[in-house]
Amino acid sequence: MDLKQKIRVIPDYPREGISYKDITPLLRDGRAFRYAVQSLAAECKNKGAELVVCPKARGLMIGAPLAYILGIGLVVLRKPGQLPGEVFTWHYDLEFGGDALEVHRDAIRPGQKVLVADELLATGGTAYNAIRLVEELGAEVVGAVFLIELTGLGGRVKLRNYDTISLVQYNY
Amino acid sequence: MDLKQKIRVIPDYPREGISYKDITPLLRDGRAFRYAVQSLAAECKNKGAELVVCPKARGLMIGAPLAYILGIGLVVLRKPGQLPGEVFTWHYDLEFGGDALEVHRDAIRPGQKVLVADELLATGGTAYNAIRLVEELGAEVVGAVFLIELTGLGGRVKLRNYDTISLVQYNY
Repeated sequence: MDLKQKIRVIPDYPREGISYKDITPLLRDGRAFRYAVQSLAAECKNKGAELVVCPKARGLMIGAPLAYILGIGLVVLRKPGQLPGEVFTWHYDLEFGGDALEVHRDAIRPGQKVLVADELLATGGTAYNAIRLVEELGAEVVGAVFLIELTGLGGRVKLRNYDTISLVQYNY
Repeated sequence: MDLKQKIRVIPDYPREGISYKDITPLLRDGRAFRYAVQSLAAECKNKGAELVVCPKARGLMIGAPLAYILGIGLVVLRKPGQLPGEVFTWHYDLEFGGDALEVHRDAIRPGQKVLVADELLATGGTAYNAIRLVEELGAEVVGAVFLIELTGLGGRVKLRNYDTISLVQYNY
């Protein structure tokens, strides 16, 4: 199935010179959505992963069905202050100021094998810091999985030490 | 499987007198997560649904695997200003001021049968307004599906005209 036919490219959005990749038509097409998630799961099934970690809630559109198919657990990283239990906070620098990701201390166990999953790989900043958080808790990242990859923004270089999987690639 | 054993109840959070239901232990347990999603899907499989609509991104933890299992499409409602295409905006009043949900105009088609899915049913305000948005676009809501229901907050009454399904109930 040609998933690119299901992705709407919007020129000059959000600003001139950027061509936005809108995956909402893919998601709302049951056959395309199912095919996309199954294809990603097939690439991950021999990695021995025990947990899918999504760096943000929107990553759940891929991460939640991936965890379901693989029969493994699911953890969502959050902005600080949104979790009720004892948390681990990972602070990091971005091009335009700092940010942080938070998770319950008992959510990711030392030695666990983890897939990081998100909808989009661009510069890789969010995924990279999700990986650093996972590693800081003593777990092992066995793959980073994305529905779309914008090549040429350095994401794959930033994640070069990890098995990086994407289903649809665009030369940004 | 007793899913309540996998839900962590945190007393006096976020403030005194409220007992918070933390589902993160359930989600990170692969067997419990799979059982929960399969149970919800079993309740929905004869409704002829063609689309799962999540009122917010966190609803994807339930809505995305539900759409996957049922083999149907997935739509996430957004805060205003986050979608690139032509949008439909639904404004509504809440106890503490107004809010709005937005979706691409072509995301939900007239006559489509829709399941609204979210992690939690409390007062039902968000789900109710998601339903109103879906109906305003001419589609039909065939069910509202939640992982957890806090009874006694009026959610089920607010959604009384819709088939409301929840997997785990707590008397709030």
